[in-house]
Amino acid sequence: LLPRARSSQESVFARMSRLAGQYGAVNLGQGFPSDAPPAFLLEAARRAVGVADQYSPPAGLLALRDALGADLGVDGADVVVTAGATEALHLLAQALYGPGDEVLMLEPVFDIYLPQARLAGATPVTVPLRRTEAGRWTLDLGEVRAAVTPRTRALLLNSPHNPTGRVFTRAELEALVALARQHDLWLISDEVYDELYFGERPPSLRTLAPERTFTVGSAGKRLEATGWRIGWVACPPGLAGNLAALRQVTSFCAPTPLQAAVAAALPVARRTGFYEGLREGYAARLHLLAAGLRALGAEVDLPGGTYFLMARRPGWTAAALVEHAGVAVIPGDAFAARQPAPGGLFRFAFCKAPAQLEEALERLGRFG
Amino acid sequence: LLPRARSSQESVFARMSRLAGQYGAVNLGQGFPSDAPPAFLLEAARRAVGVADQYSPPAGLLALRDALGADLGVDGADVVVTAGATEALHLLAQALYGPGDEVLMLEPVFDIYLPQARLAGATPVTVPLRRTEAGRWTLDLGEVRAAVTPRTRALLLNSPHNPTGRVFTRAELEALVALARQHDLWLISDEVYDELYFGERPPSLRTLAPERTFTVGSAGKRLEATGWRIGWVACPPGLAGNLAALRQVTSFCAPTPLQAAVAAALPVARRTGFYEGLREGYAARLHLLAAGLRALGAEVDLPGGTYFLMARRPGWTAAALVEHAGVAVIPGDAFAARQPAPGGLFRFAFCKAPAQLEEALERLGRFG
Ligand SMILES: CSCCC(=O)C(=O)O
Ligand SMILES: CSCCC(=O)C(=O)O
Repeated sequence: LLPRARSSQESVFARMSRLAGQYGAVNLGQGFPSDAPPAFLLEAARRAVGVADQYSPPAGLLALRDALGADLGVDGADVVVTAGATEALHLLAQALYGPGDEVLMLEPVFDIYLPQARLAGATPVTVPLRRTEAGRWTLDLGEVRAAVTPRTRALLLNSPHNPTGRVFTRAELEALVALARQHDLWLISDEVYDELYFGERPPSLRTLAPERTFTVGSAGKRLEATGWRIGWVACPPGLAGNLAALRQVTSFCAPTPLQAAVAAALPVARRTGFYEGLREGYAARLHLLAAGLRALGAEVDLPGGTYFLMARRPGWTAAALVEHAGVAVIPGDAFAARQPAPGGLFRFAFCKAPAQLEEALERLGRFG
Repeated sequence: LLPRARSSQESVFARMSRLAGQYGAVNLGQGFPSDAPPAFLLEAARRAVGVADQYSPPAGLLALRDALGADLGVDGADVVVTAGATEALHLLAQALYGPGDEVLMLEPVFDIYLPQARLAGATPVTVPLRRTEAGRWTLDLGEVRAAVTPRTRALLLNSPHNPTGRVFTRAELEALVALARQHDLWLISDEVYDELYFGERPPSLRTLAPERTFTVGSAGKRLEATGWRIGWVACPPGLAGNLAALRQVTSFCAPTPLQAAVAAALPVARRTGFYEGLREGYAARLHLLAAGLRALGAEVDLPGGTYFLMARRPGWTAAALVEHAGVAVIPGDAFAARQPAPGGLFRFAFCKAPAQLEEALERLGRFG
């Protein structure tokens, strides 16, 4: 096997879900909801099966590209549908950087970004977010600027940010855009949590730099169907054809009946206030979990978006929590590339039924 | 964009399907059935939706790996589920060959193999199958042997072979295995048409060289649901973990509800004689199309497997057929890498309803 295939390491998300199953733990690790997707999505899928079962165009079903165009406020012709956001990010890595190139990303870093850059032959270079005493993560633009070299090809951003929940402000994004323009960098904006926020709507990077921004999105995150593998990239004008050509080689097309279902569901979700309901539900769960963890003596960082929070308490380890407390979480170290994760933080997913969150809190309380 | 992403060329299959739609042509181009998938598969999917909607393990749902193990006569632990056979082949290319390496494949060659090898950084080297006067495609083992160099890493085979329909004999496979052992080559065996044959069951390469053979299969081809994107690789013992780790980076996991449906359907298909029925139906369609084309004066090669036949008639061009005759086919040239395709052959897919085949024949007759 080539060096790039020599690892057989499971991602921390797959591993923690496996261990949760093994130990009968409440799974607050991997970011997927415990609720079923909404009925309007499920019914659309049941209708599509038996009707839309064969290959679709590599760029995606026209109905889905059009629905995404309308939803995102872009031209559907600039959208390419992918096998989840993971494939979207894989395609962008293959298209935008290769041997000798560097790509900047922020740390803590979503763990899949690193092997994707390496598989593309490039070097991931992380710039740390710094955590204040008050549990806020700050971005030092000077550090980003200092990390740019003549080999830097792209800046990969994620807002709302996994795992910290940080939502970058318009001013921060504008500064990053200025830097990208100055050094002619591509911008990859992973916005899979675009509808999951607890304050102001997160600004979308694309609106600030349409000529160089690839926006990555996920039906799985928006519509609570993470296993359906429907993601997308909204490309700068003129580049969707290249990405569509490349995705013919990686998996040819995304699952057709599930594409058809998402195409039908996106306008329903928008029209019926589904995302508002989702945010309200998640805000309640966030506060349930945060209050419960604090009552146990944990220090909790409140996120601006995503369905994750970070927390710590002396005595916790991820291994002990899953095995002995019966609660699976993701250790902050899983998001560390160059520096150790700051001080023993753990990521808790709160996209789980309130009863599960309560059960987890009770178990953590018993664990002590 | 990197050189590897500079092309925006649609694959010939996507293009011919697009043109078929545009000109209202009967689509005998891209290889997907016009019939719906079997009811037992559709019902399993309708049941799985709402139940199995979230991430599954990157290697695949355990139920599906076990069902595949039982069906293929291998250990389920050696199976990795992928987003269709296309992703399976992409993963194998990334894992097995890279810059400076060569991979052998037979020509006419399925068009996606070439860009997959190049995306991996390797050089595809094709060895021609020769077509006899009688329309039989022969493999010259001496030519394969002569094409092996110190850089050759793998031999990519496809049997039943797309587009020729050639089924390689046990003796041919044994000779190729001997060559692979002598030069320590990996064997990649694309067996997506394993259940689609018209004579003896095609021997599976894996049975001859389990230690070095990766077998690629497709639920889409077997169960007539090409848009579902459920494929697999049966790996040599010990290597599934590496491939599963790599596929976390390319698309994380295959669509969960569709995996669950395929897991339920595979034993039903085997038990109820679904594949025998499929073969009978396809044999009838093959003879309908072949007889009709011959009646129009075409020369027709009868396939041993797949749902494709190759045929030619002076005066045909793929462009004229789709635009003026109203019949989409794939030009033989689309499968040519080094040499021009032998003499103006076209590939006709006969996985279409008899009424569509008859309509196509009538249109070809009118076209003259
Ligand atoms: C693709 S698996 C990771 C799921 C996820 O978004 C997370 O848990 O961070
Ligand atoms: C993956 S698109 C090609 C479909 C197919 O198998 C063919 O038409 O050869």
